[in-house]
Amino acid sequence: MKFNNRNVSISDKAKIGKNVKIGDNTVIYDNVIIGDNSIISNDCIIGEPLNDYYFKDDYVNPETIIGENALIRSHTILYAGSRFGNNFSTGHRVTIRENSVFGNNCRLGTVTDIQGHVTFGNNCWLHSNVHIGQKSTIGNFVFIYPYVVFTNDPTPPSDVCIGATIGDFSQIAVGTVLLPGTVIGKHCLVGAQSLVGGNYEDYSLILGNPGRKIKDVREMKSRETGKSHYPWPYNFSRGLPWEKEGFDEWKKENGYEND
Amino acid sequence: MKFNNRNVSISDKAKIGKNVKIGDNTVIYDNVIIGDNSIISNDCIIGEPLNDYYFKDDYVNPETIIGENALIRSHTILYAGSRFGNNFSTGHRVTIRENSVFGNNCRLGTVTDIQGHVTFGNNCWLHSNVHIGQKSTIGNFVFIYPYVVFTNDPTPPSDVCIGATIGDFSQIAVGTVLLPGTVIGKHCLVGAQSLVGGNYEDYSLILGNPGRKIKDVREMKSRETGKSHYPWPYNFSRGLPWEKEGFDEWKKENGYEND
Amino acid sequence: MKFNNRNVSISDKAKIGKNVKIGDNTVIYDNVIIGDNSIISNDCIIGEPLNDYYFKDDYVNPETIIGENALIRSHTILYAGSRFGNNFSTGHRVTIRENSVFGNNCRLGTVTDIQGHVTFGNNCWLHSNVHIGQKSTIGNFVFIYPYVVFTNDPTPPSDVCIGATIGDFSQIAVGTVLLPGTVIGKHCLVGAQSLVGGNYEDYSLILGNPGRKIKDVREMKSRETGKSHYPWPYNFSRGLPWEKEGFDEWKKENGYEND
Repeated sequence: MKFNNRNVSISDKAKIGKNVKIGDNTVIYDNVIIGDNSIISNDCIIGEPLNDYYFKDDYVNPETIIGENALIRSHTILYAGSRFGNNFSTGHRVTIRENSVFGNNCRLGTVTDIQGHVTFGNNCWLHSNVHIGQKSTIGNFVFIYPYVVFTNDPTPPSDVCIGATIGDFSQIAVGTVLLPGTVIGKHCLVGAQSLVGGNYEDYSLILGNPGRKIKDVREMKSRETGKSHYPWPYNFSRGLPWEKEGFDEWKKENGYEND
Repeated sequence: MKFNNRNVSISDKAKIGKNVKIGDNTVIYDNVIIGDNSIISNDCIIGEPLNDYYFKDDYVNPETIIGENALIRSHTILYAGSRFGNNFSTGHRVTIRENSVFGNNCRLGTVTDIQGHVTFGNNCWLHSNVHIGQKSTIGNFVFIYPYVVFTNDPTPPSDVCIGATIGDFSQIAVGTVLLPGTVIGKHCLVGAQSLVGGNYEDYSLILGNPGRKIKDVREMKSRETGKSHYPWPYNFSRGLPWEKEGFDEWKKENGYEND
Repeated sequence: MKFNNRNVSISDKAKIGKNVKIGDNTVIYDNVIIGDNSIISNDCIIGEPLNDYYFKDDYVNPETIIGENALIRSHTILYAGSRFGNNFSTGHRVTIRENSVFGNNCRLGTVTDIQGHVTFGNNCWLHSNVHIGQKSTIGNFVFIYPYVVFTNDPTPPSDVCIGATIGDFSQIAVGTVLLPGTVIGKHCLVGAQSLVGGNYEDYSLILGNPGRKIKDVREMKSRETGKSHYPWPYNFSRGLPWEKEGFDEWKKENGYEND
């Protein structure tokens, strides 16, 4: 239904891998490289030129690299000059600006807005309507829920830009704002609608406005089981690399012994 | 201006009612049924195929049913497998996923994002940029204001999915987050930017973080009138079925005697 | 790459200035006037007809005036009946409804949603995903950060509509909600995720839920410099008219002596 080559435009300076599908009304600009077996759905813009394009006659679009097996849903805009690992997927209307780097197996939800100049590890899942400011650094297996905002200017407006840093396996719940320069360790959980600044050690449960470490996530108790759901990788594996062998076994094999 | 049949694509497996207008650049996919006198504006996608479409050769698009007199504004994406009552309207860039059921006279604002597997009664009005998680159940005459988020996972990430339930006539003000499994009675008012969890009885005024019942909405006093604006149907009727006869008369005739 | 006249539609009732570029898939409706040297990128809708268009045979699209040197990024929808000064720019997917008036040098970020019937002065910068309700009045050099919402109905739902008013040079940080009728003076700073109502005098630092004046912004101390960053125009000038001569000199020459 979507792949009829209707109103499609592909630059002859783009390199399209084997078995790639490109949906109707989609545009692929100069110097985009798309890996094998990827799907770019309809109405997408891949390799969106940077601001200079509008004003400089000798503008050259920087390289945009999308790995294998991508699934880019409709109306997504990926700026030129970013790099996406294998199995990258987006919901509808995602916008990602230049100089963004994503590892493998990352997923972004509808309307999510990545401001560029950011780094994500592997297996990060961002839900709908997440906003990531420039200079943010996000580890592996970090999940970010709807309407979370990462900021970077401590005294707006200024020329200072200090992003947040998030450790592996941490979870940032819905509606939370991270203040500039926030550093969150590994395996933390930030509760819904918190306003978080400062440094937080591994395994922190962080809540409130201002966000404070309330306890160790391993001390949380489920009403049903009497045990903590965290570290969550022991209790959730759908779509994750330890799905079959379990987290302990996977950790040993993948250099996460200390996590 | 909008209905020139320019770059329009309509599946021959779609059923289009009488006097339906379909805007330029719009796509209607397989097994969409559109009721008489509906307007689908430009750049819309109706019957967006589900995830399986990308991966299964024998994919069949489930039925999408839109009632009479719809007004779907531009860039809206309605997934296949949902059902919309009569007089359904959307703002621009609305996204509604599969297995969503809407009664009659529902209105959704710009960028609102319905995650699917949800049920809405009649006459629900959602403003701009509302996010409704899966398994939410919303009654009749419920109005939801901008940047409200309905969540469903009590210990993210997990495989548990428990949506919120909202009773008839309740109002959820701007920027509020509803935690998983929240149950709100009838005629409640949830104040702006609240973080709400738990069960709330009919006529509750709910405020704060954590959200608490502050008082009965009928005890609120307006500075101007000295009386409560709530239950609001006595004081607001524009575009509602009791506009002419008044709420008391309408209640008797429509089975809402106890509300 | 963007300006190939592919699937473009321009009303013969539109007036396009000299050296204007119009991107692929863009539509310009009746009675749009675009100033010289403007760029309307791809997939935009300029002069979106008002609601009456769908229902009245004798509908005439009101005039839409865009000044010189505009840069309207892709997927932006500008309703008919609004006026934009010179050097107006938008990010992607901005929506601006009718009867909106913008001065010169205003910039709006991705997905920002202006509900119409609003007034902005000169040099206002709105970041991503800002929501401005009807009847808001915003001065000059006001910057508004992501996920800020301006509301207007004190007792939802009602027919009352009282917008917020913001004085020159004030800054509204990320995730803040302004309640109906809020009046903020000049040179104020509203902190992140605040819930703000009432009247605030010039130079207020406003924080919290409920938002309160904490101190005078001139009394704030930077850890690095020991001095206040505010009034910010003394410490930030990139892209602003006092960039070369400094704020004091510019104030004298431009009638801002008392600011």
